[in-house]
This record gives sequence, C-alpha cells and structure tokens, in this order.
Amino acid sequence: MTSNNFPTENRSYDLVVVGAGPGGFDAAVEAAEEGIKVALVEKELLGGTCLNVGCIPTKLYLGATSPVEELAAQTKARIAKGEIEIDFKALCTKKDRFIGATRKAMAQKAKKLGIDLYPATAKVIGKGKVEVSHPEETAVLEYKDLILATGSHPTVFPGLEPDNETILDNSGFLALTEMPGSLLVIGAGFIGLEMAQIAHRTGTKITVVDALDRIAVYEDPEVSKTLQGVFKRHKWNIKLGVKVKSVTAENGKAVLRTEDGEELIADKALIAVGRRPNSKDLGLEILGAETAGPGFVKVNENLEAADNVYAIGDLNGKVLLAHAASHQAGYVVRRISGKTDGPYEHGPIPSILYGSPETMRVGVMPADLEGKGEVKVSSFALVANPIAQAYAATQGFVKVVWLDGKVAGITAVGHHVSGFTTAAAMIVQENWTEKDIHKVVFPHPSLDEALLGALKAEKKDPK
Amino acid sequence: MTSNNFPTENRSYDLVVVGAGPGGFDAAVEAAEEGIKVALVEKELLGGTCLNVGCIPTKLYLGATSPVEELAAQTKARIAKGEIEIDFKALCTKKDRFIGATRKAMAQKAKKLGIDLYPATAKVIGKGKVEVSHPEETAVLEYKDLILATGSHPTVFPGLEPDNETILDNSGFLALTEMPGSLLVIGAGFIGLEMAQIAHRTGTKITVVDALDRIAVYEDPEVSKTLQGVFKRHKWNIKLGVKVKSVTAENGKAVLRTEDGEELIADKALIAVGRRPNSKDLGLEILGAETAGPGFVKVNENLEAADNVYAIGDLNGKVLLAHAASHQAGYVVRRISGKTDGPYEHGPIPSILYGSPETMRVGVMPADLEGKGEVKVSSFALVANPIAQAYAATQGFVKVVWLDGKVAGITAVGHHVSGFTTAAAMIVQENWTEKDIHKVVFPHPSLDEALLGALKAEKKDPK
Repeated sequence: MTSNNFPTENRSYDLVVVGAGPGGFDAAVEAAEEGIKVALVEKELLGGTCLNVGCIPTKLYLGATSPVEELAAQTKARIAKGEIEIDFKALCTKKDRFIGATRKAMAQKAKKLGIDLYPATAKVIGKGKVEVSHPEETAVLEYKDLILATGSHPTVFPGLEPDNETILDNSGFLALTEMPGSLLVIGAGFIGLEMAQIAHRTGTKITVVDALDRIAVYEDPEVSKTLQGVFKRHKWNIKLGVKVKSVTAENGKAVLRTEDGEELIADKALIAVGRRPNSKDLGLEILGAETAGPGFVKVNENLEAADNVYAIGDLNGKVLLAHAASHQAGYVVRRISGKTDGPYEHGPIPSILYGSPETMRVGVMPADLEGKGEVKVSSFALVANPIAQAYAATQGFVKVVWLDGKVAGITAVGHHVSGFTTAAAMIVQENWTEKDIHKVVFPHPSLDEALLGALKAEKKDPK
Repeated sequence: MTSNNFPTENRSYDLVVVGAGPGGFDAAVEAAEEGIKVALVEKELLGGTCLNVGCIPTKLYLGATSPVEELAAQTKARIAKGEIEIDFKALCTKKDRFIGATRKAMAQKAKKLGIDLYPATAKVIGKGKVEVSHPEETAVLEYKDLILATGSHPTVFPGLEPDNETILDNSGFLALTEMPGSLLVIGAGFIGLEMAQIAHRTGTKITVVDALDRIAVYEDPEVSKTLQGVFKRHKWNIKLGVKVKSVTAENGKAVLRTEDGEELIADKALIAVGRRPNSKDLGLEILGAETAGPGFVKVNENLEAADNVYAIGDLNGKVLLAHAASHQAGYVVRRISGKTDGPYEHGPIPSILYGSPETMRVGVMPADLEGKGEVKVSSFALVANPIAQAYAATQGFVKVVWLDGKVAGITAVGHHVSGFTTAAAMIVQENWTEKDIHKVVFPHPSLDEALLGALKAEKKDPK
C-alpha cells in the first residue's frame, strides 16, 4: 500500500537526490533520462530558491517594470513623456501563477520520467541509507549514489533578524503585495541591488547600506563605480563603509542603528547580506564528510563529499549561481552513468546583474591576476554605440582583460549588456587572441559591436 | 596651393577608396593604420546609406520608441497602464545630432590618420587613374589599388516613383519631422517592416502590401508567420500577393492602385521594394570589369573586379548588409598590405530585423539544404523562458538547423532575440555537435537559455 505522502514502498534506488532546486532537479531529470532509478527529496517547493524566492521572481519583476526605466531614460533625453503605473498586486499574481505553472510542469516532467518525489527532509543515517521524514511519515531510502543539492539560505546576523513583516529577507520581499514608501536595503550585492531597483521603479525611496566601500563588490571596481553613479542619479541614498549594529521593527517602521550611533528609518528593511549553505542536519558526519567556512561541504575533484556522495551547487560553495549548480549536476550524472571519469571541469561561469543598467562578467578581472603574467585591459564606452544611443542609455562600457595576449575575462555595465554574455563566455573559454577577432562577423548595428570595439581597442595597463 | 575642395595637389596614392559607407570608410581607416597612403572619395556624406538614411537612424527611432511597445505588452498582460507620448521632432533632432556627431568623428579620425578626403564623384579613366569631380573642380588620382564601395540605392519601378513628399523612399521617411496619420508600406522586407513599426508606435495606421505570399521573405517561413501574427494583432492591414500597378500622389494623399483594380489611400506611402547597386558611371568597362543582374559588379575569389580593383559591399551583391561590407573591407586591406594571399572567406553572416519582436538568423535554413544531407530542426518556444515571460513577450521561438548532426543555422523571432546573435554566429561557425553544448555554461536566467533549449531539444524533420 502506498501512503499519501510517499510515492512507493519500493525504496531501493540507484540515485537519491536531496533538494529540487536547479542543481538537484536537473540531476534527477538527466539521470532518469539515462534510465537511472531516481528518488528526489524536497522538503519545500520544487525549483528551490531560484524559482520560488530568487532569480526567477526577481527577473519577472524587473522585466515587468522595465518600461518605467526605459521611459525615464527617453524622458531625460526629452524624446518622450508620459506616466506608467504598475499594478503591483497584478504583478505579484502573475509571478505566483508563472512560478506555480513552472512547478507543476516540473512535477509532470518528473512523473513522466518515473522519478519518485518525496516531500520530506533527508538525513543520511549510514552508508547507502537516507532517512526521509514528513510530519506524518518516515522512511529509509537506499541509494548507490547520493547527490546533495540542498542549496543555501539568507545569512542572519544577530540584531538583523528578519521578521518578514517589517524586516524582510528575499522571501519576505517577494511576498509583498505592495511596495513600501521607503526601503532600507542592507547589503549592496546582487540581491539587494536588484530588489532595490524593483522598489525604486514603483516609486519607493531607496537607502542602500553596506559595510564595504563600494557597491557590487564582486564586480570590477570600475563597474561598481558606474553602477553607483547611475543609482545616485536615481537619488538613492547610498551609505558605504557603514557598520550596522541592529535593524529592528519599531512601531511598524524599520529602524537601523549603526555602530557610530546613526539612526536610519524606513517603512521596510531588506536584509541581503549574503547566503549560507544548508548543510546542517544532513547527517554528513556519519560518512566522514567535512565542511569548511560557514558550512560549505568539502568535495574532491569529482565533486564527491564521500564515496558515491556528491555535493553540488550552493552547498559546496564553489559558485553560488543556479547555472553553476545545473552544470555540476550534468557532470555528476555523466559520471554516475559512466560517460565520464575525469575530474569536474567547467568553462568560465558567467554572472549577470539585471536591471538598468545591467552588468555581466565572465572569466577573471585584473584584481584576480596580480603577478600572473602580462595583464592588459582594453575597453569601449557605450556612448559610441548606436544601440546604446537609441535606448538613451549611454552610461557604461565593455572591458576585456588580456593575460599574455589572450582574452581571460570580459565585463560590462550598461543597458542590455546581458545580451552578449554567452558570446563573451565563448570568447573567454576559447581564450581568443587578437587574430581570432576577425573570424566572427558581428552584426551591425548591434550592442555586440561594443564588445567587438573593446576587443579591438588599444590594450593598456590596468589602473 | 591646395584648393578649397580637394585636400592636396599630390595625387598619387597607394590606395583610392570610392565610397565612405561602412565598407569604404573601414577600408580607408584600416589601410591608413597599416601606413598605406589613402584617398577616400565620397560624393555625398561620410557614413553612406547605413549611417545617414539606413540602419542607424532606423535603430535610433526603434530604440527611442521601444517604451511604447514595452508598455503595450505589460498593459496587455494587465500589469501596467499609462500613456507615452513621443516627441517626434525632438527624436528627429536627436537623430540628426547623433549622425552629425558621428560623421564629424569619422572626419576627424580620417584626418588624424592622414587620409585625404575628396568630396567628389569618381570615375575610372584608365588603369591606375580615377577622375574625381566636384562642381568646382576636377582632378585625377593615381592608385596602385582601388576599392570600389559605392553601395546601393532604392529600387524604383515605373509608376512607383518617390517624390519624397507623399511617396517616400527610406531617405524621405527618415526626413519626416512628424509621422503621418496613415502609411502605406509597399514591400514587406527589413526596411519596410522596421519603418512601419516606427510609424505604428507613434500612432500611425499601417497598411503593408507585398507581391509575395508572406512578409520577411528572406526569413524562415515560420519566422514570417510569427511576425505576421504579431503585426496583425497590432491591427495592421497586411495585403499579400498584391501586384501594385501604381502609387501616386493625388490631392496630398498617396493612392495605390493594384493590377486587380483595387485602390488604397493613405496620408503617405513608403516604397521599400529592394535596392540596386550604384555601379553606373564608375567607368568600370574601361578595365574590363563586368556586372550581373541589376548591375552588381562581378568579382573573383579575391573580391577583384579587375587587377588591383576591388568591389566590396552592396556593390558586388554578395550580402547587402553593412557588416558584410566591413568584413570584406578588412579582407581587402589585409590582402593589399600583404597579410593574406588566400581567397576571401567569411563565417556565417548574421542578419537581424529590429523591432518588437526582433528576428535573428545566421547560417542556412532548411529551405537552403534540400537534398544536401540529413537535415533536422530543433526548437524552443519563448513562452517557457522566464525572461520572455518577464517582458510579457512570449510570442516567438528559437530554431536550430542541423545538417548531418552539426549546427548549420540558427534563427529566432521574439523580444530581444538579437541579443544572442553573436553567440549563435559562433555556434554556427564552429558547427557545434550535440557534444559541444555542454562546453559553455549559459547564464541563468537569461534569454540565451532559449537558444540552449533549442540546441538541446528533440531533433525533428523540418516541416
């Protein structure tokens, strides 16, 4: 007899996957497509953080509100005028529907492929054995291979605990059905800056606070500077080098106190100060697996935390990006199914910040290359590109990083620069030299020509 | 003594370039950068058709008016409402300023590189001799190498002659300082469809007429079908298979009469029925050069029309696109400067139609491959892409054409699909197999994932 919660009583699997985010779900699907018998265990929602409370809803909001920014740019250029009103409740509903439909499609795909879905928490209880628990039921799954893809959660510091009423984390922000009049954003990384832009476009007054001396610290410093310039022209209050002592809800307002005694007050606060791996309570110690730093699971060159136990995605801390998790998933499945026995290798992992402007980065930046060879940079300002001119979005540039005469990295900031990310990834992957520039015909006119312009520009010493 | 019109009395050159459009100007610049002594002859404006009355102003208009379309998409999705008013006069002024500034920058670049600019017509008068004529002055330039890059002009059929008051060609349309209430577009190719969209966005009622049975006939038929569907939802009157007898200005209105006796009336008409090469009066016959079809200059595998006389760009009719001209220019200069002696080769030449939606195409389509091997297609619908969802622009798809298991062509139609054109060009150029798909990490979420989805999708027989 099959229970209500668990799909089957036959609990012997080739592969058990824990976590159904981009890494875990892709691993389960790709394995099932190879004819591997798979159990997929997920304690919350199919799609994980990315689909439910991360990249996908954020991009839906940014895309839907982009006419506001496009109109603002043309209004500033005195080409257009007008008013746009965003129906935020409708947007929220659309987001919920799209995400719901995507989860449903995922469940159908899993079912079609014969993947057994367990809505449960998972804990390794011995070699080859995972206990899965649901409030009403507990069972033991047997595995030959185990993939752990449990992802990460927002970092919480003492004194900065979200209540998801007034003090929000990413989930709380994305659950809002109306935007606040003012928002304090603590943490000027990807999540904070994308969410701040969404709020800004609906008319919210934005204050951004970060402990570091620049925003988007993972980006090249010149990219941070351009971004900061654009956001300052949006009249954001950007406060850097600030040590936050506490953020608390007081009389329905968010109150931030700095270690210097300053007080900032807004309708809501968003805490976006990084993410921590979900490695607790997985029972990893029983297998001899180890963690490092804030709990990232240590893996060998095959992404193994222990024999036949793989940790992928945010959990291993290599790159906290959904597409990195998916790529690792593909490798592990190829390994399990005997299609590869080499170590995990990956090309450059591109990274994008969406909004107005966008940023893209792939490969290494000058700061990564100190003392590693002859480092040069060549760049192209978007003001000279007709497509950037057309969108009245001429702030920004493309920068190519050369190591010993070969392209080692590319970054850009500006309107729609995400568009050439895959081309840039291919160029970095192939380590183009100057000679390779002629082998591809770039379309004209196009924003991609700004990338071509940067590739062709004079190579200079990095600043 | 130097005259007012001609830069110098020393008229012996290594290279004379006739025509300062994308092909000719790039050739002159690249040659000068190699230390070659160059004269550049242009009878009209630096930048040619592309900069002055072609791709560049059209894209400026499309970019500037894009908030209208973006808002319309979100309004249809019930996420936003509002009004946008385009100040068309201001847009026209901005366009003129940008183009003027670009021409000025080109002239400065030419000057800096020591290129002698001749504002004149040119005619070959013998081997090694070109006569250049300005109303006030005539001179003979001597050359070792000659590059002819004189471009093309709009085709004019009897009965469809533009007066550029009521019956417009591309120049007339781009000179308008206000858009008409209604516009008849004769010819549903790139130029007609882009200009029709500009007018549509400013509120013009559009009628499109074409003799063929589909719009955008150079595109894959499925792309044409999707485009046509979008434009029909814009309430355009699209009349196909229509033989136009005449288009005349009558009482300030444009009147189109078909061979079937139908009459269509609008405030203005745009004639966009193709382009013809500017090969008349170049004196080519004196060198034994030949033309074909409507006057395209025949060239050998080195792009030579005669010994040391090259014809590039629209003039040779290979591909009537600015970036093809620039690419040919680069080859000829490398050949002249002794850097290559092989025949002209080029990778896939990408082609983009801008607007909402955009189309992109690179490499071959199924119709090009009949009887040439095992042809398969794989495709991905944009409705499943979160970025397309975000822009409420879910119409469209990406299609990959496979020949004997290798990528031979890629086409797409949809919002911003131009963004992955260069990546697609690289994939076609490298003739990816299924195995190559894993070598590049695509960013997530991104529109590029729709391209990835098409690469990974099931391969089917073309319809």
